[in-house]
Amino acid sequence: MSSKKPIPYHRYHSSAADSSEISDRRQFLRAGLGFAGTVAAASATTTIAASGNIKNLPPNVPEWSQFLGANVDKAPYGTPSPHESDVVRRSVDWLTATRESSINFTPLHALDGIITPNGLCFERHHGGAPEIPVEDHRLMVHGLVDQPLIFSLDDLVRFPAESRIYFLECAANSGMEWRGAQLNGVQYTHGMVHCVQYTGIPLKTLLDECGIKTAGKWLLAEGGDSAGMSRSIPIDKALEDCFIAYSMNGERLRTEQGYPLRLVVPGWEGNMWVKWLRRIEVGDQPWYHREETSKYTDLLENGKAREFTWVMDAKSVITSPSPELPLRRGGRQLIKGIAWSGRGAIKKVDVSVDGGINWITARLDNPVLPKALTRFYLDWQWDGEEVLLQSRAMDEFGYVQPQISDLHKARGVNSIYHNNSIQTWLINKYGDVENVRLG
Amino acid sequence: MSSKKPIPYHRYHSSAADSSEISDRRQFLRAGLGFAGTVAAASATTTIAASGNIKNLPPNVPEWSQFLGANVDKAPYGTPSPHESDVVRRSVDWLTATRESSINFTPLHALDGIITPNGLCFERHHGGAPEIPVEDHRLMVHGLVDQPLIFSLDDLVRFPAESRIYFLECAANSGMEWRGAQLNGVQYTHGMVHCVQYTGIPLKTLLDECGIKTAGKWLLAEGGDSAGMSRSIPIDKALEDCFIAYSMNGERLRTEQGYPLRLVVPGWEGNMWVKWLRRIEVGDQPWYHREETSKYTDLLENGKAREFTWVMDAKSVITSPSPELPLRRGGRQLIKGIAWSGRGAIKKVDVSVDGGINWITARLDNPVLPKALTRFYLDWQWDGEEVLLQSRAMDEFGYVQPQISDLHKARGVNSIYHNNSIQTWLINKYGDVENVRLG
Repeated sequence: MSSKKPIPYHRYHSSAADSSEISDRRQFLRAGLGFAGTVAAASATTTIAASGNIKNLPPNVPEWSQFLGANVDKAPYGTPSPHESDVVRRSVDWLTATRESSINFTPLHALDGIITPNGLCFERHHGGAPEIPVEDHRLMVHGLVDQPLIFSLDDLVRFPAESRIYFLECAANSGMEWRGAQLNGVQYTHGMVHCVQYTGIPLKTLLDECGIKTAGKWLLAEGGDSAGMSRSIPIDKALEDCFIAYSMNGERLRTEQGYPLRLVVPGWEGNMWVKWLRRIEVGDQPWYHREETSKYTDLLENGKAREFTWVMDAKSVITSPSPELPLRRGGRQLIKGIAWSGRGAIKKVDVSVDGGINWITARLDNPVLPKALTRFYLDWQWDGEEVLLQSRAMDEFGYVQPQISDLHKARGVNSIYHNNSIQTWLINKYGDVENVRLG
Repeated sequence: MSSKKPIPYHRYHSSAADSSEISDRRQFLRAGLGFAGTVAAASATTTIAASGNIKNLPPNVPEWSQFLGANVDKAPYGTPSPHESDVVRRSVDWLTATRESSINFTPLHALDGIITPNGLCFERHHGGAPEIPVEDHRLMVHGLVDQPLIFSLDDLVRFPAESRIYFLECAANSGMEWRGAQLNGVQYTHGMVHCVQYTGIPLKTLLDECGIKTAGKWLLAEGGDSAGMSRSIPIDKALEDCFIAYSMNGERLRTEQGYPLRLVVPGWEGNMWVKWLRRIEVGDQPWYHREETSKYTDLLENGKAREFTWVMDAKSVITSPSPELPLRRGGRQLIKGIAWSGRGAIKKVDVSVDGGINWITARLDNPVLPKALTRFYLDWQWDGEEVLLQSRAMDEFGYVQPQISDLHKARGVNSIYHNNSIQTWLINKYGDVENVRLG
């Protein structure tokens, strides 16, 4: 429990592409379901809900039980239920200059557990997604090595493999929120993250195969996309836990996730997880390429920039309720969210329903894995009053997710990267949820 | 190490639908890659492989780096790389009477890790897959309860949730192998299994909400498909770890996996994981419905049948190499496979390359979870000689995967269910892999 005083909040209207759609739906729901300050009765009921078609409700045998269902064999690669067709990655047309340099956000509000399905995984690309003929793809390892080597995928799959469940988060995730509550939807505020089980081979294995010279202290990882995405990585990290993935969630990488090879850099910003990986050069100093100078550095108030701010610090967000998932009934609610830390495992997540005055420890669901998403829950009753909902993660090293004001004090407002601050949702008495900024 | 004597093996030809295709490919590879008893050089190389197009190989900049790639935004729900289009669920037309009662097998040979992507998950349906309008679907809980209740999905998602990674295996998996090596492909011999992270609410929570009367000892779970799939489940199992799932691998259930609700019965045969769940009745004895009498019982030699043989005992299979993944180079190989036990966690997996005379302990990859698939690896060198490849799982209670001859002695050959015996692959000197039976 904190003794902190309540803080006034200032609302900002959403500039998200679908704000008008959300707004229309609100009006409809208020009118159609009779939300006029009152809150519908809570919990499960023996009463048949008015919205159901009585002939399909128990104890009647529903229509769909009376006829043969669809032929599953027609879909050798299965797809989601048509009733879930709004659960998709979404992009916005104002965030990047072209569609070939775009961002697809994970629909976090609609997801459970810690595994992101491959079809819904966040991705960022800078020159479109190349369709690489796998038989012609090669990975070259060269520079300060005893023996430069070129590997085909067929070579790589013979090396000792490992699978690890890791989150991948873009350093710019929540970046638009630096200057206030800009986007009304958790898919947009926090959807530059995914978590999958990656399979591949430790980078150390390949480096050992080539033999790193004593002077070799840095790697350059370069992608085979038309942007030639490249990043410098210190050798200690490369040897510690980086690996070269060829599969995600059991199957080979998706095209937009780097097929056939991507670098996995656990806990570090997603831009370093170079996709369509074709070249690793060993050198004695960083390369200072575009994506680690002009981009992915944090310009401070004094005109200097923080560089090589690789680690994604502890962060969390409540995914339900959220702007996409307003409350439509009072009483029993399941608050759910995700937490993660690029330094290790999540130790604890607290939830506040009063804007950070009081905190309640949430329930962490298994498995709790280092550098992976962790699912948390809080069982809660909503009494129909206005609520300021927040979550606050703590990692295994005792680091606590900060307020945005703490980050502003330390770094000013010039940068958009590494915003891991506490997110606030305002739930109004209609159950609508808005992204607001406290303080 | 075992002191067992070598056993002669008897080959059986495949009756799988794609056997001619496999056979054609073999001929092609033998001719095209010069496999004539010799084995190509091992390990990674500085030499550019002859099959590659030189203009795309390092240090050249490949063609696909020189032009903008595809617009990812066009696929809001992503799909696999077109280069992986043969990695799909497969059914066969001779196994069931109609397409509306069919089986789709997981392509185990092509998968890594322990998570099966939703689009590739094994499924079995008996009356087609009903497309249920979620707003009309209800789950009724009645019978020997204090208060019968009817739940909508909107009711259920408010209860305390949990996610668990579990395998689901059909009792008939490997069933066609009871009388010998029948099917030439691990997708068909062992593909009636998947492993996902399911999310839902403990069945105990709903039963507590209704209040089970003292006489209530069994449940009947009934699906909303046209087969009206139904199974009896003892109350102890229901209260121990069963849950009602609404999500798999993060997203809502797929249609063919029971959208919007399925019962999860960890470690027990897949037929009990009732899909399209619409009714749970509490009673004082089992119902002896079709699927637990005429089907899913094991007819013994003496004319009696084992009934209620629910648990899926420890089992394993090598997925690569396998009939679908022949060896095409000598030297360094990564043997990989999966193991699982319906009783708990896998403790150990041994691999033999000489038909069970000698055993080598395989490496278990993390995470090793109870009642989930466990991935194992063995790093191995192939010298080009004929090999009899086997794996043998042991669970945390010391139970060891049996030989088929052990099962025959205990149960005869009348039944097809619960074949968890050791699988043998014959690798011949060309690297082709065949399903064979030892002994």
